[in-house]
Amino acid sequence: MKIGPLNHVGIAVPNLEEAMENYRTLYGATEFVQPFVMEAQGVRVAFVNLPNSQIELIEPYGEKSPIRNFLEKNPKGGQHHVCFEVDSVADAINDAAAEGASVIGEPRIGAHGTLMIFIHPKHSNGVLIELMEPAKH
Amino acid sequence: MKIGPLNHVGIAVPNLEEAMENYRTLYGATEFVQPFVMEAQGVRVAFVNLPNSQIELIEPYGEKSPIRNFLEKNPKGGQHHVCFEVDSVADAINDAAAEGASVIGEPRIGAHGTLMIFIHPKHSNGVLIELMEPAKH
Repeated sequence: MKIGPLNHVGIAVPNLEEAMENYRTLYGATEFVQPFVMEAQGVRVAFVNLPNSQIELIEPYGEKSPIRNFLEKNPKGGQHHVCFEVDSVADAINDAAAEGASVIGEPRIGAHGTLMIFIHPKHSNGVLIELMEPAKH
Repeated sequence: MKIGPLNHVGIAVPNLEEAMENYRTLYGATEFVQPFVMEAQGVRVAFVNLPNSQIELIEPYGEKSPIRNFLEKNPKGGQHHVCFEVDSVADAINDAAAEGASVIGEPRIGAHGTLMIFIHPKHSNGVLIELMEPAKH
């Protein structure tokens, strides 16, 4: 595989609206994607739009949300993952396997409506890496 | 202030060369800024160049490196900071102070040769935010 642009940085937060307000008032961000629920993933997400990338704010949704464990360890929130674009998630999974790297779960549709997968953080210096196909235009 | 592009994501690692090799072999990265020492900051850094942004890999340098504490808590490494571009670091410090947000240390010259500052993670959901002036062209 060959990673392309850094699509977004995922940040877990206890409250989306408070986090968005902080990006607005402290950092002067003006462009957002308003919160929406991804029920199957157990998250509610919003985006801070930057000229070249996005910050994905992630709030737990439902009792089984994978973000709950993260927030128990980091109650104020914290950096959760980094997402790179790849041409093909299927090819990326095969290439990762050939390098001995394991993915987490099955490929699924992410917050951008395209296929994505996570590579286990043990393969990337403790950083959870998301690989996603860019939106087709 | 108004943040501009996401300039880079900083990732602390125990060994720059191993981390670069991993980005090369696992993720197919081909463009790098080779390692160099920033003695005053107590770090040795390298960059993975992406089409729209960079990954800054950070290794401790010297006994007093601020990265040593981070690696003691996260021995394999981990996400260390997110860096946004701002027009003026001096203005950003004033604006942050007006919002009650504290900076860490004094403005200094960062890895890109321009002025930068860190905002304490307690003001941004546990995320250490770097603000840097972009390189002048």
